[in-house]
This record gives sequence, structure tokens and C-alpha cells, in this order.
Amino acid sequence: MWGGRFTAEPDDVMQAINASIDVDRRLAEEDIAGSLAHAQMLAAVGVLTEADAAAIASGLNQVLDEIRTGRFVFSRALEDIHMNVESRLKDIIGEPAGRLHTARSRNDQVATDFRLWVKRACAAREQQITALIGVLVEGADRWADAVTPGFTHLQTAQPVTFGHHLLAYAEMLDRDRGRFADAAARMDECPLGAAALAGTGFPIDRDQTARALGFAAPMANSLDAVSARDFALEALAAIAICSQHLSRLAEEIVIWSSAQFGFVRLSDAWSTGSSIMPQKRNPDAAELVRAKTGRATGALVGLLTVMKGLPLAYSKDMQEDKSQVFEAFDALDLSLQAMTGMMATAEPDLARMRAAAAHGFSTATDLADWLVREANVPFREAHHITGRAVKAAEDCGCALWDLPLDTLQTIDARITGAVFGVLTVDASVASRTSYGGTAPVRVREQVARWRSRLAAATGDA
Amino acid sequence: MWGGRFTAEPDDVMQAINASIDVDRRLAEEDIAGSLAHAQMLAAVGVLTEADAAAIASGLNQVLDEIRTGRFVFSRALEDIHMNVESRLKDIIGEPAGRLHTARSRNDQVATDFRLWVKRACAAREQQITALIGVLVEGADRWADAVTPGFTHLQTAQPVTFGHHLLAYAEMLDRDRGRFADAAARMDECPLGAAALAGTGFPIDRDQTARALGFAAPMANSLDAVSARDFALEALAAIAICSQHLSRLAEEIVIWSSAQFGFVRLSDAWSTGSSIMPQKRNPDAAELVRAKTGRATGALVGLLTVMKGLPLAYSKDMQEDKSQVFEAFDALDLSLQAMTGMMATAEPDLARMRAAAAHGFSTATDLADWLVREANVPFREAHHITGRAVKAAEDCGCALWDLPLDTLQTIDARITGAVFGVLTVDASVASRTSYGGTAPVRVREQVARWRSRLAAATGDA
Amino acid sequence: MWGGRFTAEPDDVMQAINASIDVDRRLAEEDIAGSLAHAQMLAAVGVLTEADAAAIASGLNQVLDEIRTGRFVFSRALEDIHMNVESRLKDIIGEPAGRLHTARSRNDQVATDFRLWVKRACAAREQQITALIGVLVEGADRWADAVTPGFTHLQTAQPVTFGHHLLAYAEMLDRDRGRFADAAARMDECPLGAAALAGTGFPIDRDQTARALGFAAPMANSLDAVSARDFALEALAAIAICSQHLSRLAEEIVIWSSAQFGFVRLSDAWSTGSSIMPQKRNPDAAELVRAKTGRATGALVGLLTVMKGLPLAYSKDMQEDKSQVFEAFDALDLSLQAMTGMMATAEPDLARMRAAAAHGFSTATDLADWLVREANVPFREAHHITGRAVKAAEDCGCALWDLPLDTLQTIDARITGAVFGVLTVDASVASRTSYGGTAPVRVREQVARWRSRLAAATGDA
Amino acid sequence: MWGGRFTAEPDDVMQAINASIDVDRRLAEEDIAGSLAHAQMLAAVGVLTEADAAAIASGLNQVLDEIRTGRFVFSRALEDIHMNVESRLKDIIGEPAGRLHTARSRNDQVATDFRLWVKRACAAREQQITALIGVLVEGADRWADAVTPGFTHLQTAQPVTFGHHLLAYAEMLDRDRGRFADAAARMDECPLGAAALAGTGFPIDRDQTARALGFAAPMANSLDAVSARDFALEALAAIAICSQHLSRLAEEIVIWSSAQFGFVRLSDAWSTGSSIMPQKRNPDAAELVRAKTGRATGALVGLLTVMKGLPLAYSKDMQEDKSQVFEAFDALDLSLQAMTGMMATAEPDLARMRAAAAHGFSTATDLADWLVREANVPFREAHHITGRAVKAAEDCGCALWDLPLDTLQTIDARITGAVFGVLTVDASVASRTSYGGTAPVRVREQVARWRSRLAAATGDA
Repeated sequence: MWGGRFTAEPDDVMQAINASIDVDRRLAEEDIAGSLAHAQMLAAVGVLTEADAAAIASGLNQVLDEIRTGRFVFSRALEDIHMNVESRLKDIIGEPAGRLHTARSRNDQVATDFRLWVKRACAAREQQITALIGVLVEGADRWADAVTPGFTHLQTAQPVTFGHHLLAYAEMLDRDRGRFADAAARMDECPLGAAALAGTGFPIDRDQTARALGFAAPMANSLDAVSARDFALEALAAIAICSQHLSRLAEEIVIWSSAQFGFVRLSDAWSTGSSIMPQKRNPDAAELVRAKTGRATGALVGLLTVMKGLPLAYSKDMQEDKSQVFEAFDALDLSLQAMTGMMATAEPDLARMRAAAAHGFSTATDLADWLVREANVPFREAHHITGRAVKAAEDCGCALWDLPLDTLQTIDARITGAVFGVLTVDASVASRTSYGGTAPVRVREQVARWRSRLAAATGDA
Repeated sequence: MWGGRFTAEPDDVMQAINASIDVDRRLAEEDIAGSLAHAQMLAAVGVLTEADAAAIASGLNQVLDEIRTGRFVFSRALEDIHMNVESRLKDIIGEPAGRLHTARSRNDQVATDFRLWVKRACAAREQQITALIGVLVEGADRWADAVTPGFTHLQTAQPVTFGHHLLAYAEMLDRDRGRFADAAARMDECPLGAAALAGTGFPIDRDQTARALGFAAPMANSLDAVSARDFALEALAAIAICSQHLSRLAEEIVIWSSAQFGFVRLSDAWSTGSSIMPQKRNPDAAELVRAKTGRATGALVGLLTVMKGLPLAYSKDMQEDKSQVFEAFDALDLSLQAMTGMMATAEPDLARMRAAAAHGFSTATDLADWLVREANVPFREAHHITGRAVKAAEDCGCALWDLPLDTLQTIDARITGAVFGVLTVDASVASRTSYGGTAPVRVREQVARWRSRLAAATGDA
Repeated sequence: MWGGRFTAEPDDVMQAINASIDVDRRLAEEDIAGSLAHAQMLAAVGVLTEADAAAIASGLNQVLDEIRTGRFVFSRALEDIHMNVESRLKDIIGEPAGRLHTARSRNDQVATDFRLWVKRACAAREQQITALIGVLVEGADRWADAVTPGFTHLQTAQPVTFGHHLLAYAEMLDRDRGRFADAAARMDECPLGAAALAGTGFPIDRDQTARALGFAAPMANSLDAVSARDFALEALAAIAICSQHLSRLAEEIVIWSSAQFGFVRLSDAWSTGSSIMPQKRNPDAAELVRAKTGRATGALVGLLTVMKGLPLAYSKDMQEDKSQVFEAFDALDLSLQAMTGMMATAEPDLARMRAAAAHGFSTATDLADWLVREANVPFREAHHITGRAVKAAEDCGCALWDLPLDTLQTIDARITGAVFGVLTVDASVASRTSYGGTAPVRVREQVARWRSRLAAATGDA
Repeated sequence: MWGGRFTAEPDDVMQAINASIDVDRRLAEEDIAGSLAHAQMLAAVGVLTEADAAAIASGLNQVLDEIRTGRFVFSRALEDIHMNVESRLKDIIGEPAGRLHTARSRNDQVATDFRLWVKRACAAREQQITALIGVLVEGADRWADAVTPGFTHLQTAQPVTFGHHLLAYAEMLDRDRGRFADAAARMDECPLGAAALAGTGFPIDRDQTARALGFAAPMANSLDAVSARDFALEALAAIAICSQHLSRLAEEIVIWSSAQFGFVRLSDAWSTGSSIMPQKRNPDAAELVRAKTGRATGALVGLLTVMKGLPLAYSKDMQEDKSQVFEAFDALDLSLQAMTGMMATAEPDLARMRAAAAHGFSTATDLADWLVREANVPFREAHHITGRAVKAAEDCGCALWDLPLDTLQTIDARITGAVFGVLTVDASVASRTSYGGTAPVRVREQVARWRSRLAAATGDA
């Protein structure tokens, strides 16, 4: 393959470490698309005859069909997807196959294939994220006034609505979606035509190949075209951050599914049992989603490590870019699907949530705020008064709203009976009507906003 | 600070692990800006009297002045920047200070401060990147036709122009700039008003505070507002990727500065000596830039690890977000400045570069391309013919262009004397005129494009 | 500092990126110890006069005293701790100070200082881990028969004893201790005398300096001595793994402290409150311990990134080794102390734990095992039978042990009244007497084993 | 598989995310070894009949044979290797297969399988490291007095011997070997018998199964046994650190193979060519070794992320432990083999190395040391004098040893003609005879020490 200058065969280990076909065969569709575009362009500018271009196109389509139908035999001796395809093309069409590689190199070829794959994968994840947001928004609508504890430090802090809680994840996921979109837009330039590293003297039309492959433009610097992998790093960062969001929701599902919380029951289709403890209903899918953030972070670190300190232009180190990227995208693919399935079928136990929300003097802030608002007490002082009221309630083993008025008035004379109107969990959530607040009225507004955005997004797609 | 319910003092170690003031004092400007905006808004909606708001504003400005002039005494017992500022405010203005914390919480306060800091830091890095691009573009203009080896695998592959090489980094850095811009745009929403986690019942105007702090809008979900740190993760990812680009250029500077390459001489101002070897001129700054990618990657992994699996809303774990972010931004700050300084003053040794570019049969591809173009030889066959020509040149210890024509014709009869017109390094680079190619004419076009973009960017700023 | 060959001053940014004194001043004790040992050895082999050596020793001790008492003025212009100390030495003793650097270089000097620091820090962490194990073992003794749920997937699986649960962490921490000990043993070789990178022609006695500094031996290869940082990487890996163990216990404390679990109440000294919600008792210290695993992982990745691909011998990149190592050791220091304090004072709610352990048919396995043992039913079949029994109990809303015998016999005729003897949580834990099992008798045996090990460890120290 | 309580089938995505058979089939040998040991022990303690145990053993051996010969059909519906094996066992031997799972659980089963695999893999890597050290030691013997530049900052610092340089890597690799040995020793405890998490009431003999599987002892705490993964983390850390060492040597090979350095020529068997540039000899294997440190670091971070904050005992997250560990061990396997092959066949260009070593006033330190030793000049003053001599040599474009004596004496009158005896590169390396120094006599001593150590290591194995 490397011309006739080598007198000894490569060592077996050399072949094993060097061959990438087990990994890059996954680029077959993109590789053939790139070759088709390249051949068509070469014919258009007169480098290839129309006959050769037609033979190449016909042959490549046959190769593609063989791959899609599982009849293609991949060879490690041919190292990579590019040589596997070209070699088979030669079997099929003979001499014109040898003209296909004119004005290109494996360096720009693999950069094009991989960039195309990553761009498409970003788009696919965007759609899956949109689907998950859709599920969350429907849940938010259904449970817009279902009261549940709002936690800080996993301690009950203030009551919130479950719909509001679900929409917090919709916000995070929407930013994740934006990161994939931005990454895809930034990588939307075609490396093809950079050749080995310096461009070429053939009169190629890079705009044509870029357009044929669905890129917005050709890349403006040939050295950059073959040596850049920041597009993959940016995609991995988007995956890692999205996975981190999913790990938070997954953690909540695991906690909510515990007997002690009992806030949520996963459907049978999304639970597993145990080989020794027949009573178990395990949130395995949530745990696996939580774990897959490890794959994402590992892949990101892996590729950052690979790329650190590489001089221009192409170094073989870059061959180690693909496996980690494929695995990270696959992990997120499964995670998004699993999370969508779980959330679409999980059933909250509204009674337990409401009871938990009332626990732990969760409306203490409402008492403090009442003192500020109604009695003009400075916030810091109101805070101290409320602390004493909570202590009194704790001592008598009752809720804040069950304290006798005169007990409250002993603590601070400015408290009146009107205070009891703000101390229930429903009053608390209903009162938090500031923009972005948890009040059902605000949640329903947000649901409406989301629905129109999702409709637009679906319309776009 | 936490009201009167605790009977025992915190353990000393508890205070040490809990206090964040050594780190978050760096948010002082942002914290006071946030409080000023909050107080002004509270007065506008009638929650504070104008007199109280004026006292608060006056007091806060005094605190800010004390901090800026180094007279402020920070206290660890007061834990964090928020309590340090508020406590001092109370010393100065008394009772109204206790009204400032109405309708907010440290949760939305720190989220606002930190987001504001990160947003500003992203903008500062964008400007520094633009400055570095400017230096590279001027170098590209100066060396648009200086021939240097284009390497793959650190082996001479094809001649390129040094200007073209510099512009490859301009492309990478421009995408880095775009990542900071996208991150800044995505984080351009204000958390203030989310209060502890649920919003508030006070009639606050979140649009007003967002606007006052320079945010595009308030965040739409209060739980998300206090628990999101993806803005910091995205910024860290942008830093890590940019650092990785800088590490590549730094590696090249180190290699180019070696006696064996001798391509570049750093200025005195950007070299260091040795305590024991007086003859050394060490590229320390380049090595430190290369190393600082470790800090960036470490910080990204660190925060991804912190955030993994945290349930909503605020958990104390998030306090560990700031030190790593500050350090990563600082590392990139120094790296960008150092790289700009080094590149602005480094002097290439054009003669050595040119000589190296001619080495190693670097125009072999040009011979192969000539065979394809002029003799209609299929590329794969031309490749084999060229391999034999290179072997012949190697055997006779001469350059490709010094091979006698009849030797070449023995290898392949289709070769004519015209071939010598493409075998020099100048002919090679001049021929690569495809879009994005290394030909001087293409490099100068790109320089013009960059200049107009940079003018626009500077005009914007 | 670098001799007279440079005509221009370093750029300010160059100084800022190059100076390490803000970080490496922490090596002052080790640096001076190294210089004292070096000077004494130089005198012993006749390279220094006794008078010069005495002057140097006296001067260094004065410098040390100035540093310890805070009177030393560190200078950034002098770059690092080595030059700061030597410069001050020269102020104090004059000319002999210029003879101290004979037969050494900053390369072996910093390698020695840093290795010594890391070795000592490993020993300190070992002691802290032993202290934490001690607290866990005392808890295990106290709660050797306190029944609590054993979870898998955070679902109640089988009852275990709380003492057994605590000892699981003692096992993990003991392996962590072993990792620090192994790392310390492997790094117990002295780099001093490697000079810049090649050794020296002076007749130095490296055994003497190694011994004086408490190292087992000198390092056997001078290039390795100045360029190795695997000792720091191994220590960081030990920190990261130990932090990961602590993060698991911290997560449990957070979950156990929730109102829903209510298994554990942290003492006042290890809880915090809230600025707005006066009723909160937050497990901040546990959350911070959990978060600090991010710092540890980040530091490990950071230094692995720095060291990747560095050619021998010394590169300036290595200067970026210390800050991350210091921070990671500090984080673990606080984490171990905090965890020890929390665990020493936390109080379990034994009644809630026991009640939770009985929940969820946690003795289902005991029923299955009984069928295998007493009725010779194959395990897989026993599993199916038990599954049906659990379903019956679930349908009637009762515990397994409350099912009528005839209901059980309807499910499988081989079940007899004797089965009720194994279905309580106390019977379950008491029965698990296999080595390493949760039975109180086994836990007490382990406590005894631990106590004798800890006594030995303390005796050693 | 989970008993009869679930009414709905798992979702397809649930199956896809949950099934581990594609990964854990690699544990087949260990899984069957574990089952054989378990069945034999159950029979020995009377829980199984001898007949059942014999049937199980016979059946398991048949399964093993089917797997080894590629006739076994793995099923994703059966989730994992354990159920695949047990299900096939049932096909073969019927009812007794259902008795095998008595007194164990998949939790202790997978912990045992995986630990056994990792322990064996550590031993295999130890042997490969020893082989690589052997190659380096033979090279050190061959090139014990071959002079080459010793670099700091990739600048020529002092001459060293190439043998000494190779032995620096032997030292690093020996510590790597030690890390694998320590990790293997620490993980040498058997989890089997911990059952699901609490131990078992069956009278099992854990010492017997531990011994049968080659473990030193059973693990002492059942909760720890099923939830610990620090053994895998420690192995990954050892891999990452070893990979980092290999990345340094790989970087050197890449640099040495460049035309500009030309220090080393890789053999044909360890070089690759180019599809477009027929003259290239690329050090692909070295680049791939350098890159594979990314996989190692990524896997370590990945598993640290997975394990962060997992409560005891088993969580499904842990299923994500194996793929990263397998990949990291595989990467190091290839890297060690490739590095051994490359180093065993690479040929240094001794003349170029020697010439480079003489370049750049590399014996300046020798001049400074001569002044200290022979003229009693304080080191710091000698350093300044040498700096002026270097400047003089640079100005006249000659080597230090070509400076006229009177020029040197103008710089400092104490210099005599004797100085020329120390200024050559051979004199320089020969003089550095301190322990661990680069002098040929020291290198040969180290070679002898290594040979006897390697002989002992091979004798052990």
C-alpha cells in the first residue's frame, strides 16, 4: 500500500495497533458519500472523464449496498475504511478506481468522513433531547399544581410544584440542545480538498463538494482542515454536560424510587428485578444513565489528552479520536432514550409528595416573608423571629400552622391571626408568582411557552 | 448567622471546610453590583423605602471602595463574600442593611455573582484571542511566501508557506473565540429573584434587575436558576479546547527552538536562562503554555465530577465550583498573553526553513500529480512510479530535481523534461492554489479577509 | 540570574507566568533541609571548607527561622523558593552562599524538595485515615447488632447490621492507607546529586544526603531523578481513590440525614443552617467532602495531562506539578478530618433503621434459602416460590411473616410453620454467619481484629 | 428471570441499556472457574450432593469448551455472562443447574470474576514491562559510551550517554511494574461468598473457594466485597501512569525520527508509509503509543466518575466498570508490545548524536565546575565567568574548546591550559561518575545490576 520502498513486512503487532477498520468501518456511509461527491466534482472540472466518474459512482453504490446488506468483507490488512472501500471498488470497476484518489488524501478524507458523522450525530441527539423535553412538558402540565418538597442539601426547604421541578430539567436540556446546535454550526465546513495538508494544484471546486455533502462552506485553511479535531472535542463537551444533567435527574429517580421517599414508581417496562431478592423493583435504567456520564467524561478527557501538544498537520495519534467519540454518542443515545421512556411512564405518588412537602416547617420562609411584608420587620430580624417559632413548633411536636396564636405572639407581638393564611403548602406555592417562580399559574404559562417552542422546533425538523 | 436553634458551635474543621471567603472574595465587584441592582428594584416596586434604598446604595458603594483600596478586612467567621459585605454594610448603615436580603437568598445571589463573573471573563478572553489572531495575521502577511516544511508525523511531507501555517492557528482560535461567544450568549440570563429555589411572593421585577446587571433576560425557572452550573462547565470546555490549541502551537515553538530545527528564535524578553548552564535559551513560556492545558482539563473534569448526580436544587457541593473556574480562566489569561507576546517577537530563520522544506523529497507528490495531470496516469499508478523515483534519488544521494531525465524515463517513459518545472519547493507551493491551499496568492487573500474581520471585531468592541 | 548574555529584560507577562514562588514557597522547610544536608555532605567530602559549611548552616537556620516566624519577604523577581532562600542567605553570610550550589542544580533541588514534601504528606494522610478507621471501628462495636436496611439500587435488599456497614468503610480506607504507604515506599529515593540531569564530577556522597533527608537510598539514574513525576501521580491516584470512598460515605450521610430516611442526625458542630430557612440542618460538611473528590480527580487528570509526551529530561512544564498536588492533599486533609468529626458525633436513629429494614419484604431471601435448606428445593425454583409469596404479601398489605401459613402452603406445600423462625430481621442478620457476613457475632470478631491492628499501627507510629 | 411479579415486558431500550453480555462475555473463563470452585465447595460442606456437583462440573466444562471453540451462542435476552452460562448449563444438565446459585448472588459472582480478570491482567502487564526493560538494558549495554545530547527544554544542556538515557526509562518502567504488583497484591482477596451483600446462612467455606481461585484470602466484609471497585481504579491508575511514561519515550522517538534530529531510524517492520507521499517513513507506532495514554486517562476518569457518590452496596452503575477497564488494559498491551518491538529494532545514528551533543556549548557546566574545583571560585561566580566565555565563543562562531587561551584568560585570569582537558564531550560524560551519573562506567554498573534483577524476575516467573 505504501509503494515499493519497504523491504520488510510490518510486524504483526504493528498491524494490530495500526489498523483502524474495526472502528472506522462505522464511517462507511460517510466515506462513500464523500467519494461520490469528490468523483462528481472531478468530472465537473475535467479531471476525470464522465465515463470514469460514472463507473466510480456505480461501483461505489454497489459497495454501499454490499455494506448495508452485510455482504461486505472487511479486511484488517487494508487498515481502514478508505482502503477497504477503494480496494473493493477496484475489484468491481478496475482501472478507473485508481483515479478516484486524485487531488485528495486520506488526511482530508477521514477529516471529512468523521466531521460529517459527528455533525449528523449532533442533529440526532438534538431531536432526542427535544423528545425528552416534550415528555417533561407534558408532565409539567399534568402536575402543575402537585405540591412536592423543594430540597436544598436534600433537606426539605420550601414546597414547590412537581411541574415546576420537571421544567427545571427542560431548561437544562434546552441549553444542551443549543450546545449541540452551536457545535454543529461551527463544524459545518468541509475539509475535503485540503489533500494531504497543503491543498492541491488540480483545479478542484471545493464549494461543489462542500455543497454536495451538505456543508455550508469549505474550510479556509488546508493545514487546519486536516489537523483540527476541536469539532469532536466540542461535541464531546456537549455530551458530557448533557450527561451530567441526565445524571442529576437519574439520581433523583433513584432517590425518589426508594422506599423511604416513595415519590415515584417506575413502570414495569423500566424496572428490573433481582436474581436472589424477588421483591426488588430496581431503577436500573436510571442508575445506568447516571453511570454513563462516566463514559462521556472519560471520552472527553481521552481526546483532550490525545490532542495535547500535537504539532501540525496530521499525526497518527489522531486515529485514536473515533472510538471514544462513537462510544460517547452511543452512550448518550441510550441515555436519552431511556430517560424519555422512564419519564413518560413513571407515576408520582402525589399524596406522599404533598405530605413530605409539609414536613420540616417548610413554610418557615413564608412566615418570615409575612413579617417583612405585613409588619415591616427587617428581613434579618424576621429570620430570627421565625427561627424561634420553628423551635417552638419543634418542641411541641407540631406543624408551624398548628402553633397557637398566643405562642406566636409571645415570640413576637406583631404576629396576627392573618399569618395562618400563608403557612400551608398550597398557600406557599400559590404565593410564589415572581417570574420563574413555582406558582401553578407561572408553571402553566411556561408550559404554554414550551409547547409553542416545541411546535416550532418540530415544524423546523 | 443561622438563627438561634443550634446549641453547639461549629467545629473548627467544619469552619475551615465550609468557609469560602478565601475564594469567593473575588466576586466582590459582582456581589455588590447585584445588591445595588436588587435594592434599587426593591425600592422601585415599593418593598423598600427610597430612603432605605439610598442608604443601602451609599453603604454598598463605600464597601466597594474599601475593597478596591485594600482597606476591607475579610472575615472567615462570616464564611463568604455575601455575609462579609452585608455585615460591613450593617456596620456602616445599621438597620436598613437588614432589609437588603428581602426576596432573595444566598442561592440566587451566588448564582448571579458567579454567572456575571464568568460572562465577563469570557468576553475578556474573546478580546485576548482576537489580539493573538491579529499577531498571527500580521505574521502571515509578512511570511506569505516563506517556504517551510509541512509536516505529517513530524516528517517532512510537502512544502508549505509559513504564513499559511500561522493562519491555521488563526482558524482554530477563531472557533475558540466563537465558543466563548456562544457560551456567553447562552449564560446571558439572570438568576436573581429565584430566591432560595422557588421564587418569591414579593412583587419583584426580575426584568429590571436583569437589565441593570447587563443580562439579556431573567432565567425562566427558579429551581434551574439556583442549581445550574452548566454555564461554568461550558466555559471550562471552551478554555480546555482553546488551551489544547495553544498547546499545539507551544509544542511547535519548543521543537522549532531546538538546535536541530532552529526554525525560530524567541526574543530575549520571552526566553529564560539556566542557573547552571549559562548558554541556554529556554522556551519556558511556551512550555508553561503547553502545561497549562493540564490545569484547564483538570478544572473541567473537576467540576464535571462535582456536579455529577446532584439532586435539585442547591447542594453545598456547588461551592467547589469557583476555585477551579478562577484558576482555569487565569491560566488561559496568562497563556494567551504569553503566546501573543512570544509570537509578536519571535523571528523565523527563513533560510533554515526553506532548506528543510527541500529535504526528504518533499515534492514527490508534485511528481505524482504531474503524472496524473500531464500523462493521464491513474493516481494509484502515479504513486508507485513516484515511489521508484524517490528510491532512485535516495540511492544516488540527490534531490528529486537532480535526477537525470533519463533515469526518470527509465522508471517511466511518459516523464518529460517539463517535470522539472514542478519539482522545486517554490513551484510546489505556488501550484497549490485550491481554495484554502498554501499558495502565497491564497494566503494573501486570507490575510485580507482576516484584516477586514478583525477590523469589524474591533469596531464592535 | 541567568548570566550576562541577555540584552533585554523579560516581559512582565513572562515574569508572571514563570514565577513559581507563590506556590513553591510551601516547600521552604524541605528546601532548607535539602540545602543543609547538601552543604554538610560537601564539607564531608572536602568540596566545602568546614568554615563555609558552618556559615551556610547557620545562615540557613536563620532563614528558616525568618520564614517560620513570618518575617521573610518573598520576592517574585527571584522566581522560586530556591533563589529566594539562596539570595537571603547571601545577604546574611556573603560569599560562602555562592558555594552552596556546587554540584547541584535547581532540577535535582526541586525534585528533592517536592518528593520530600509528598512523602511526608502521604504519611500524614495515612495517620488521618487510621484515625477515621478508629472512629468507624468504635461505631461498629457500639452498633454491632443494630439492624438497618442493606440496600442495592437504594432499594431495601436484606437487613444488615449498622456495625457491619461501618466496617465496610474501614476495609476500603485500609486499602487507601496501603496505597499511600506503597506510594511513599516507592518514592523513598533521593534525587539530590543528579545535578542538572547528568550527575556531576564532584566527589559527592549521595548516600549521605539521602540518609540525612530520611530517604532509603539515592535514585539510580540522574535523568530519571530530575524528570520523574510518577511519585506525584501515584499520590494523586491514591488521593482520588480515597476521595471516591469518602464520597460514597458522604452520599450516604446526605441521604441518611434527609427527613425521608432520618437514619442519622449530625451533631450541631457538623451541621449548618440557612440564611433564609431557619429550620434547616444541612449536612454541608458531607456535601463538601463529596465535592472534594472533584478536586482530587481534577488534579490527577491535570498532572497526567501536563506530563503526557514530555521528552527527557527537565521541561518547564513540570513546574505546573505542585499547585495541583498541594490542593489535592489539602482537600483530602480537610475531608478526612471532617469525616472523622462527623462520624464521631453523628447519632443513628436505631428505631427508624430497624423499621426500614423490615420494610419491603427484606427477608425474602431468607425464605428462599429456607426452602433450599430445609425442603431441598433447587435455588432457582425456591426463588420463584418466594416471588409468589412476596406477591401474596403485597396483595394483602402485610409483611411476609404476617402471611397465614395456609396461604404460604397454597403457594408451596413444602413450607411449614418452622419458616416463621427465619423471617424476622433479627433472625435474618443473626443467620448470616459466613466469614465476612453481617451477623453480630462476625462483626464483633472483626472489631476485635481491627482493634489489635490499630493498636499495632499506633504502636508503630 | 426476575420471578413472576412483573406484568409488562421490559422496553427494548431498557434491554439494550441493561444487557452487558457484549462486554462481560470476556469474563467467561473467570465466571466458569468461579462456578466450578463454588460447586465443589458446596459439595464439600454438604449443601450439594456429590452427584449434583459432578454434573455441574461436567456441564460447566462443556460450556467452557463451547465458548473456547466459538460454538457458544450468546444471548442478549439473558443479559450477562452469568445467566448465559447458567442457562446453557441447564440445557445440558437439567435440574442440578438450578442448585448452583445457592449461597451466592450475581453481586459476589461478578465481583469475583472481574477481580480475577484484573489480577491476571496485572500479572500479564508486569511480564510485558519486564520484557521491555530487558530490551532497554541490552541497548544500554550496547550504547553505554555513545554520546548524545542531554536536553532540558529540548535545548542541549549537557552531553550524556545514550545507554544512560535508555536506563532512565528502565527505572520508570520498574516503578510501573511495582505499581501493578502492589495493585495485584492488594486485590488478592476473594469476594465470593458475600452473596447479595450480607453473607449467607449456608455453611460455606470461603477459604476453600478463595484458595481454589488462587486468591490469598476471602474478603473480610460482605458489603465491601460486592461494592468495592477500587481494585479496578488502582489498576487503571497504574495503566495511566505507565502509559504516561510510554508517551514520553514515544514523543522522543517521534522527535528523534524527524529529519532535523535524525537520531534514530525505525526498522521497516515498525514504520509506515503514506498513500500520497511515497517518500515518507512515519513513526506511526510511536504516535499511536503516545495517543493511547488518552484511552488510559479517559478510562480512569470514567470509572472515577461512575463510582463517585454511590451508596452501598451494589448499584447498577457499577456495570459500567468493565468496558473501560478492558479497553485500557488492551491499549497498554498493544503499547507495550509495540514499544518493545520498536526499541528492539531501532538503530541510532551515533555520529549525528555525537555531533549534536557537541553543539550549543554543552560543556559550559564543565568549565564552571573546573573553575570551582581547580581555582576555588564560588559556584555563582564561576557561572558568570562561564557565561562570558560562552558569549565570546558565540561571537567568534566557534566551540568553547576552540577559544584561544588568552581570550579565556582575559575573561578570568585564573583559567589555565588545563581547562581544555574537560571541555570535550567525551571528557564531560566520563567525568560524571557520581552515583546515578551518566559516565560509561556507571552505566555499565547499572546494566549489571539490571541483568541480575531481570534474571531473578524471570526465575520467579
